[in-house]
Amino acid sequence: MASLVVMYKTPKNVGAFNTHYFEKHIPLAKKIPGLRKYHVSQGPVATPAGPSGYHLIATLHFDDLAAIQQGFASDAGKAAGADVQTFATGGVDMVMFDDREV
Amino acid sequence: MASLVVMYKTPKNVGAFNTHYFEKHIPLAKKIPGLRKYHVSQGPVATPAGPSGYHLIATLHFDDLAAIQQGFASDAGKAAGADVQTFATGGVDMVMFDDREV
Repeated sequence: MASLVVMYKTPKNVGAFNTHYFEKHIPLAKKIPGLRKYHVSQGPVATPAGPSGYHLIATLHFDDLAAIQQGFASDAGKAAGADVQTFATGGVDMVMFDDREV
Repeated sequence: MASLVVMYKTPKNVGAFNTHYFEKHIPLAKKIPGLRKYHVSQGPVATPAGPSGYHLIATLHFDDLAAIQQGFASDAGKAAGADVQTFATGGVDMVMFDDREV
């Protein structure tokens, strides 16, 4: 499996972010071809030392790294990527990788 | 469920890091009470724009955020945490959060 971890920093307007994310962005992102599972953080994103500066973390699971790249090159992937730019007003960090259970 | 995402920046000596991580750290971390699943990245950690600066990403799954905190307060959790300081020579970022499938 492979994971895309999308880490949204605290946005300028949390209420507007949440409305857009849950009502518009999730339905768009779920159309990305190859997406197997989609998890979203609930409540605060913490670190061992305290608050993280992140508001929400989404983890999207695909079969492998190539499937992530193909998904984001699709029309649905491009639409979801363009949508991020409209609501991620605090910025966003993304990492993607193949992974395995140990 | 809840996730602890541990993001290791590229260490000074990748070979020494990998030997320590796979031979010593994973067995230590697997002793943390409440740990349900443990995933480790394989190969490069990328971003949509190119390399990420991270060498390895581990995701540890627990029942909830309280279980993560209890796990790390245990003797096994303290030992795993202390061990990180001995091999994470590039630094490490950690975030933890409750999550749900959407």
